[in-house]
Amino acid sequence: MKREDVIEAIILAKKAKGLSWEGIAAEVGMNPVWTTSACLGMNSMGEAAADKLCSVLGLPAEAKTVLMEYPTKTWDRAVPQDPLIYRLYEIVGVYGETLKEVIQEQFGDGIMSAIDFSLDVGKEENPKGDRVVITMNGKFLPYKAW
Amino acid sequence: MKREDVIEAIILAKKAKGLSWEGIAAEVGMNPVWTTSACLGMNSMGEAAADKLCSVLGLPAEAKTVLMEYPTKTWDRAVPQDPLIYRLYEIVGVYGETLKEVIQEQFGDGIMSAIDFSLDVGKEENPKGDRVVITMNGKFLPYKAW
Amino acid sequence: MKREDVIEAIILAKKAKGLSWEGIAAEVGMNPVWTTSACLGMNSMGEAAADKLCSVLGLPAEAKTVLMEYPTKTWDRAVPQDPLIYRLYEIVGVYGETLKEVIQEQFGDGIMSAIDFSLDVGKEENPKGDRVVITMNGKFLPYKAW
Amino acid sequence: MKREDVIEAIILAKKAKGLSWEGIAAEVGMNPVWTTSACLGMNSMGEAAADKLCSVLGLPAEAKTVLMEYPTKTWDRAVPQDPLIYRLYEIVGVYGETLKEVIQEQFGDGIMSAIDFSLDVGKEENPKGDRVVITMNGKFLPYKAW
Amino acid sequence: MKREDVIEAIILAKKAKGLSWEGIAAEVGMNPVWTTSACLGMNSMGEAAADKLCSVLGLPAEAKTVLMEYPTKTWDRAVPQDPLIYRLYEIVGVYGETLKEVIQEQFGDGIMSAIDFSLDVGKEENPKGDRVVITMNGKFLPYKAW
Amino acid sequence: MKREDVIEAIILAKKAKGLSWEGIAAEVGMNPVWTTSACLGMNSMGEAAADKLCSVLGLPAEAKTVLMEYPTKTWDRAVPQDPLIYRLYEIVGVYGETLKEVIQEQFGDGIMSAIDFSLDVGKEENPKGDRVVITMNGKFLPYKAW
Amino acid sequence: MKREDVIEAIILAKKAKGLSWEGIAAEVGMNPVWTTSACLGMNSMGEAAADKLCSVLGLPAEAKTVLMEYPTKTWDRAVPQDPLIYRLYEIVGVYGETLKEVIQEQFGDGIMSAIDFSLDVGKEENPKGDRVVITMNGKFLPYKAW
Amino acid sequence: MKREDVIEAIILAKKAKGLSWEGIAAEVGMNPVWTTSACLGMNSMGEAAADKLCSVLGLPAEAKTVLMEYPTKTWDRAVPQDPLIYRLYEIVGVYGETLKEVIQEQFGDGIMSAIDFSLDVGKEENPKGDRVVITMNGKFLPYKAW
Amino acid sequence: MKREDVIEAIILAKKAKGLSWEGIAAEVGMNPVWTTSACLGMNSMGEAAADKLCSVLGLPAEAKTVLMEYPTKTWDRAVPQDPLIYRLYEIVGVYGETLKEVIQEQFGDGIMSAIDFSLDVGKEENPKGDRVVITMNGKFLPYKAW
Amino acid sequence: MKREDVIEAIILAKKAKGLSWEGIAAEVGMNPVWTTSACLGMNSMGEAAADKLCSVLGLPAEAKTVLMEYPTKTWDRAVPQDPLIYRLYEIVGVYGETLKEVIQEQFGDGIMSAIDFSLDVGKEENPKGDRVVITMNGKFLPYKAW
Repeated sequence: MKREDVIEAIILAKKAKGLSWEGIAAEVGMNPVWTTSACLGMNSMGEAAADKLCSVLGLPAEAKTVLMEYPTKTWDRAVPQDPLIYRLYEIVGVYGETLKEVIQEQFGDGIMSAIDFSLDVGKEENPKGDRVVITMNGKFLPYKAW
Repeated sequence: MKREDVIEAIILAKKAKGLSWEGIAAEVGMNPVWTTSACLGMNSMGEAAADKLCSVLGLPAEAKTVLMEYPTKTWDRAVPQDPLIYRLYEIVGVYGETLKEVIQEQFGDGIMSAIDFSLDVGKEENPKGDRVVITMNGKFLPYKAW
Repeated sequence: MKREDVIEAIILAKKAKGLSWEGIAAEVGMNPVWTTSACLGMNSMGEAAADKLCSVLGLPAEAKTVLMEYPTKTWDRAVPQDPLIYRLYEIVGVYGETLKEVIQEQFGDGIMSAIDFSLDVGKEENPKGDRVVITMNGKFLPYKAW
Repeated sequence: MKREDVIEAIILAKKAKGLSWEGIAAEVGMNPVWTTSACLGMNSMGEAAADKLCSVLGLPAEAKTVLMEYPTKTWDRAVPQDPLIYRLYEIVGVYGETLKEVIQEQFGDGIMSAIDFSLDVGKEENPKGDRVVITMNGKFLPYKAW
Repeated sequence: MKREDVIEAIILAKKAKGLSWEGIAAEVGMNPVWTTSACLGMNSMGEAAADKLCSVLGLPAEAKTVLMEYPTKTWDRAVPQDPLIYRLYEIVGVYGETLKEVIQEQFGDGIMSAIDFSLDVGKEENPKGDRVVITMNGKFLPYKAW
Repeated sequence: MKREDVIEAIILAKKAKGLSWEGIAAEVGMNPVWTTSACLGMNSMGEAAADKLCSVLGLPAEAKTVLMEYPTKTWDRAVPQDPLIYRLYEIVGVYGETLKEVIQEQFGDGIMSAIDFSLDVGKEENPKGDRVVITMNGKFLPYKAW
Repeated sequence: MKREDVIEAIILAKKAKGLSWEGIAAEVGMNPVWTTSACLGMNSMGEAAADKLCSVLGLPAEAKTVLMEYPTKTWDRAVPQDPLIYRLYEIVGVYGETLKEVIQEQFGDGIMSAIDFSLDVGKEENPKGDRVVITMNGKFLPYKAW
Repeated sequence: MKREDVIEAIILAKKAKGLSWEGIAAEVGMNPVWTTSACLGMNSMGEAAADKLCSVLGLPAEAKTVLMEYPTKTWDRAVPQDPLIYRLYEIVGVYGETLKEVIQEQFGDGIMSAIDFSLDVGKEENPKGDRVVITMNGKFLPYKAW
Repeated sequence: MKREDVIEAIILAKKAKGLSWEGIAAEVGMNPVWTTSACLGMNSMGEAAADKLCSVLGLPAEAKTVLMEYPTKTWDRAVPQDPLIYRLYEIVGVYGETLKEVIQEQFGDGIMSAIDFSLDVGKEENPKGDRVVITMNGKFLPYKAW
Repeated sequence: MKREDVIEAIILAKKAKGLSWEGIAAEVGMNPVWTTSACLGMNSMGEAAADKLCSVLGLPAEAKTVLMEYPTKTWDRAVPQDPLIYRLYEIVGVYGETLKEVIQEQFGDGIMSAIDFSLDVGKEENPKGDRVVITMNGKFLPYKAW
């Protein structure tokens, strides 16, 4: 099985069993965002998580090895087009310099890691329309001088 | 005064007075991220905020009008290069599809608004290295059928 | 069935039955533009519309689920080439700044939503040559300060 | 005077006199969208309109000639970035093929002209939030066989 | 049959029957350039022409419908590479502004239509080497003010 | 004087003297398209033409040398945007392969030269709207085998 | 057989028979660079050469027709990546303007043809390391004024 | 003096003194192509050559140091547009793979150096039109295994 | 077998036999980085290495010839996306000019060869987190003047 | 003083005083690569280093503040062109996947940091030509699961 086959098998099994990403994540015992990203081939799973996912979705044994492999993380378009994803890109464009100013003022010269990093999605109920809350949490990495 | 002149005047005044974005925001009475973005020309200020900013930084009266104008929001590079900003772009690339799956599972078909939207930066202290916490909060907008 | 298979099945059935988009839309009970966009995979259908479409075109039951899924909206070329579509792109290029000036003068700082949005095509008869009338109707979204 | 100088002079005079695009257009006796586009250098004015504009805004005589010249119509970015303009681009991406289907079904093989063309912006008041209404009206041009 | 299948069938039949584009066009009763473009999927044929083409080349009945469909006109590379086609692109690059000056001086502000348009290729015999003569003939479309 | 200075001087002198490209070309004794292209810096002039142009427009002596220099021919945008020029690009895109087929059928394997080449613009009067006629005439260059 | 099939058949036959491009060219009676380019689909062969190539490599009769067709010459990447080919691109980048100066000083305003053109590769033995010698020979084409 | 100033000074002095690149190179005692490239800022000169060039052209002493600096070699456009330079790019596109095959067959796996490299331009007189002869001579560099 | 088939066969055999790149390299008797690059199709193997690799992994005899062929070295994306590879690209962006300054100060005008070149990866143990050590070793190639 | 002014002042002072990057670094007490990168605006200096640099080069006091600011790290071209820098880019292209395989085999799923990172250049003397040795040393950052 190749990575794409495993992803497709996961999506089909999820649909067939009527599961949600949130439900799958609860079974696997990890955060829904991380679990979804691993199912879509953007993170490698540890053995326990891969085992659990295979049994929840009834995936073939071969899928487990693939889920544990270290994926090559790429995306199709340098500038995304789907409106939901584009809005995130736009936020980086509009607020990128601002975030650099504000983060470096608070933390010094460095960056927020995208590797030692977690991401969460929440819902804030609101009578004028519910709100999506995305929380990014990454280790601050100071630039090293040498 | 053009927009660029006002931005430059703000940066010079901030440096000369030894102020921080956080301090300026506190005086203006708004969030530091929003205040910084308005100072960098990515948001228009209401009259009260523009007045306050001008007096805090000692900007000429003409600056106030410019701060209240509706800016054209653009950025230099389709794929950003500064490491701090690139990491945000990378997060959109790696987790974009995942966020689409997770948000639409929770909210239905639609997007998180980047207009009716706020953004916050916090610090999580951690003995292994402090962590940057970025919180995005945007209204969910369901697609309309007609 | 994948999204592409459903789109292809729709186009074949439409041709085989000699139907028009307008006729299909009338059966489905929705606007022809929206109905066409959903048939071409650019909008998700509610259950009633999907049911109706399947029966009008004689699509297999599996198609209904696919029609109700939330599509990833992407297009092939950043700058379109087909002359009909390019002209629309050209209008955005030539009149983009103008529309920003005129809309924001009338409504304040914000945008026209492309999500809470509808689109209509009409014909204006004219002895010198009929005219195409495209009407876009989107909710004004004011920028939020925070 | 070059084109850019005239545009800048118009914007400064408009600000100094506290005029709106709508008000200027009313004086000039043309539609606000067209008038704004001509002021921003995207359309040439006839002599009467140019005369009127110069007197309303107090522009130097030299400006009149420039306003009557045939402009080169270009824009900065193949994919626009300002959110208001990007949304229009996104609509072309998402609905381009749909519009091709619907227009050509109604009119035959051809395109909507972007030259023999007019554009209008209106406001639809709505308790849930006012709506922007953009109307495009272009002559249908059938492809010629030879 | 899809568009590509019909194009391929035309090319194979043309080769098998030893026909030329010019010969085919004569049978179809249309200009060779237009006929070739329709055979290559860049123009839709009227019923008579499609009928004639099918019988000349012995195409299956299904091909006729496809030939009458309204094609999506796209090309592979924004900047063409084949030397014959690149030279045409180069001419547009080198002489584009010149043509704008010369045409608009003669006709006023507007464009040459690429829709109400015909194109012809001729040969000019010359002892120093024959010359290719390409003639474009398009309706002048004046910009409309409104 | 640099190339740009000479071009600007030509345009100013032309406007000041109320001349047309056609009139200038008649004085210089060359074709209007070629003359305009040389004035816009896309062709070098022979001494006689340069002399004549300088005296017609009252250009400084230094301009003559510049007009006789061999220009670097470049253009701003790989895909042009001004509608008049874009239409020419579109014609290359839509009819490029067709022209390759038709020319090579008539002439053999080779190209139409864009160097040993001339270009002409004419007007065809027509009650339904005048038509622009562009004629390209280039030497056929057969590929050499070796 | 399509072009790609013939190219693949040539490469397989060459490998199976242990032939070199140089050896094939000697049999065909043409230059090795030209012969290789024709085998890789970048030049059309005359009948004699195609006949000879087919018999040397044992290609099917159908291949002969394909070898005689006029190919569409395209390449995958606007900026090549393979180091051997990139170095050639780099030479064009670094020395392009220089070659323009030196050639036009010697020949007048014009270009070196890439059509009436030949290309040769030689080896210069050298104790410090052998040297590759590439010779381009193209007809000078003077720009035509008209 | 910056690099651009020195280049401009060279071009002006060359024009003022009526020198050719060939003549300058003869004085400097180097090849015309190399000398021109160094004058255009694409190669650094040794002290003797820089001295000589300064005295031949009457450049200020400061120019000598700049001529001896190691230049950053860049060019404006990834795909060149001037027809003379584009033809060279086209040759790389059309014959790149062919050259790879032929060179590596003769020399083994490796490349022709663009650093330990020389380039020459010659003229081949020919009654049908003179021919440009470009000769590249670069050290073969075999890939190293380790 | 084509190159891709051999690469896939290597990866499958490596997985099936539970081998590491380091282990394979030790068997082949070459450096792990070079061996891996040859297995991934980015370097040609000498006969001994290819023989050894085939026997270690149990590859079919046909694979040996392919491993010895001279590969075309290309990569998918001009700007890489996988975070591990992007960081290397970022280092080139951030430190490219610096490396040019430092290398040319030490070695004179020239470059580090990427052909007569080796590359090594090591691990530096560190209580705060192990460190990756990448060592590049390339022959200095001075620019040649001629 | 802006960043560019400080960089220019450093380069002029270095030239005027006849210093080398290595010598400057020795005075500043840091590695030559890091020191050069900070002088070229790609790293911020601590106060001690900035002080030292200012006194070594005789920079105005204002320069010190600028040297301590956190720079925005960007580069001009997505694909570099100067041959020395391009070779580094080529190495990333040719060996990127290989490095991913080798590093992740040794360290697990993660990346080499480009932030907690140092870079060194050395010379390896060699009778066949000296060799450049570039050493990268970056902290391994394992991907976090959450």
